[in-house]
Amino acid sequence: MKQQQALARGPNDPGLENPTRRNLLVGSAGAMAAVSLLGITPLAKASEPKSLPDYAAWKDRTALIVHSANTMETKRGAIGSGVITASDRLFVRNNLPAPPLSITDNADAWEVHIEGVRNPRTLTVGELKTMGVTTVASVLQCSGNGRAFFPHGAGGTQWKTGAAGCVMWTGVPLKNVVEELGGMADGVRYITGTGGESLPDGLDPKSIMVERSVPTRALDTALLAWEMNDTPLTHTHGGPLRLVVPGYYGVNNVKYVKNIAFTENQTDAKIQASGYRVREVGKPGSPDQPSMWEMNVKSWVTAPLATGRSGRNMIYGVAFGGVTALEKVEVSVDGGKSWKQARFLGPDLGPYAWRPFVMATELKPGEHRIVSRATDAEGNSQPEGRVDNERGYGHNGWSDHGVTVTVS
Amino acid sequence: MKQQQALARGPNDPGLENPTRRNLLVGSAGAMAAVSLLGITPLAKASEPKSLPDYAAWKDRTALIVHSANTMETKRGAIGSGVITASDRLFVRNNLPAPPLSITDNADAWEVHIEGVRNPRTLTVGELKTMGVTTVASVLQCSGNGRAFFPHGAGGTQWKTGAAGCVMWTGVPLKNVVEELGGMADGVRYITGTGGESLPDGLDPKSIMVERSVPTRALDTALLAWEMNDTPLTHTHGGPLRLVVPGYYGVNNVKYVKNIAFTENQTDAKIQASGYRVREVGKPGSPDQPSMWEMNVKSWVTAPLATGRSGRNMIYGVAFGGVTALEKVEVSVDGGKSWKQARFLGPDLGPYAWRPFVMATELKPGEHRIVSRATDAEGNSQPEGRVDNERGYGHNGWSDHGVTVTVS
Repeated sequence: MKQQQALARGPNDPGLENPTRRNLLVGSAGAMAAVSLLGITPLAKASEPKSLPDYAAWKDRTALIVHSANTMETKRGAIGSGVITASDRLFVRNNLPAPPLSITDNADAWEVHIEGVRNPRTLTVGELKTMGVTTVASVLQCSGNGRAFFPHGAGGTQWKTGAAGCVMWTGVPLKNVVEELGGMADGVRYITGTGGESLPDGLDPKSIMVERSVPTRALDTALLAWEMNDTPLTHTHGGPLRLVVPGYYGVNNVKYVKNIAFTENQTDAKIQASGYRVREVGKPGSPDQPSMWEMNVKSWVTAPLATGRSGRNMIYGVAFGGVTALEKVEVSVDGGKSWKQARFLGPDLGPYAWRPFVMATELKPGEHRIVSRATDAEGNSQPEGRVDNERGYGHNGWSDHGVTVTVS
Repeated sequence: MKQQQALARGPNDPGLENPTRRNLLVGSAGAMAAVSLLGITPLAKASEPKSLPDYAAWKDRTALIVHSANTMETKRGAIGSGVITASDRLFVRNNLPAPPLSITDNADAWEVHIEGVRNPRTLTVGELKTMGVTTVASVLQCSGNGRAFFPHGAGGTQWKTGAAGCVMWTGVPLKNVVEELGGMADGVRYITGTGGESLPDGLDPKSIMVERSVPTRALDTALLAWEMNDTPLTHTHGGPLRLVVPGYYGVNNVKYVKNIAFTENQTDAKIQASGYRVREVGKPGSPDQPSMWEMNVKSWVTAPLATGRSGRNMIYGVAFGGVTALEKVEVSVDGGKSWKQARFLGPDLGPYAWRPFVMATELKPGEHRIVSRATDAEGNSQPEGRVDNERGYGHNGWSDHGVTVTVS
């Protein structure tokens, strides 16, 4: 339970999973191809390309760390006061190469098939736009954000803090769509979204496709979004249409979504069955392990990051509670020996958004270890340490997320 | 009073004004030079340049109407769901050519002199950053937004709805600065901000400078801002430092602010003494007329703008109350005969922000006049008509702001 709280929160009913072909590719000829396609370089850092890939060329290069063509991280100091992350500074993490840019040419014509409802139908974005609309601010965060702090060298992109941002999503509540189509079929326990990427020949589609299941409790808040930050959803971030599950890790927010299935069981696609599963270091992934669904409570300092000046300093950061509103953030400038409550900065955008925080403090010359610790409205606080796990998921330990600042 | 409510709200104490040299330039040799420098082309539409000026080249050209090198309007359909206006879509209105771009190279070194306090001082932005911080969402709107709807051909940029946006400002509360400097001097009634533009030789500085006074009641909310939308304030929008007066018309939000004076009287600069004064058509401006300070309640539809399809349509728009929170927005699809309350969309960013609204409605084939009418928490509603005035200021009449939509 302690581990679950610190990683992926909420019930995971491991006894209810589908059987799956786990580790299908291990040792197979397809393994390296798949690994390369996924942009994963296990146990080795990718060399950093100098420029943004074409599909993300509109991004602010100065605000990003480019890990690979599929993975770009927001620099820790590029958050500003941080209420909403500017679109051109938001991180990018694609599980597959993006579909052709042309799919956003006529966004309203994009089709999504809805099944596992009483009256299954294929709907265009244009039709979805008449079924209702909501705007929700929500943190988008990769499951592996903070992976770089694990000492065992967890495979995958070495994200520090920047595989996260807070953005505004606009689209139709998924529950409206379900109502229009007569309600969910009997026995449904999962919402399964499928991405519209083209899959390469010669590989088992299940081994590579982006298809994720989340529990139906997410129907209360999930939406099919066509806008991000008040502008049409870009191809880079999943346009024309993205499944957004507020408070859930990024992978569940399926880009270019082409199919929504209300299902009795979770998909047996690898990304669900053995991928994004929390397990001990060295263990393979399997469906009986917790899935990366609801995010846990987390915070980090965004300024200062390296140097400060003697006297009054303003410590900035961001904090969020996943699916639960925040209660408070405390800041320590002595590595966690003493804490003082920080002040939230700017308007409260709701329980799924992050909240920027600020604390004024006097600093003397020397080195200071600055750490922050958030607590949500249910009393969950960030732990001090990390919970080691094979893939380096869900790290929210406050100690690793601190910064050492030299004041002169 | 009715007129005042519909134009610039709040007391204006006309009896307390400074004497001023009004219409100083009328008929003088300097008049045409000043008019050209100000980007004003009275009684004639400026021809529209094809491209953005260099200092605004980073803007999204597709979202803007370029009136002149100093005036760019956000297209009515470019608002999206509208919670926060993306920086690259925000309108631009400069009263003078911008200072050199280099002033933002080292933003923290920019200096502002504070006077009319017990301990006057020159402060750098770096110093201001240690004095406190706040983040406020506020509508930025030009006094002349809606001018194009006046039938008498009011001089100045022919703005329709797009000389407005809602953005997030971050900076130090001005009252914190005043406290640090020992409080205001005796007898102070105005906050007077001066812009850092270079003034041309050969003209009386007072006739051309950007120097505005607002009443000290604005000290409760005014800030000196170094960030807009969570990124460092751009030169285009007044960086390194801008005086922001939430709920006040744009002109009061002095860009590149280099001096803040707490004064007994309003400045006698032309932009204050005779400019931005509400008066009858044909009358010259003078200090005894209402100044464009607090904004009035206003709304407009942003979608659909021209065509709809038979059946269910979603009507979108934005609404704000100036310095007062909104109570409600009503929408009519029959030109104001019958009204239905719209729903606010997305998080409430506070009383100075606008609120996007949406209303689902069934439309039959034919022409429909769609109008919106906002009411603030004090019961002020948009009037149906307009209050004609010389410069076309403060137009918030709902009839002119409607759209005619053809449904097929």
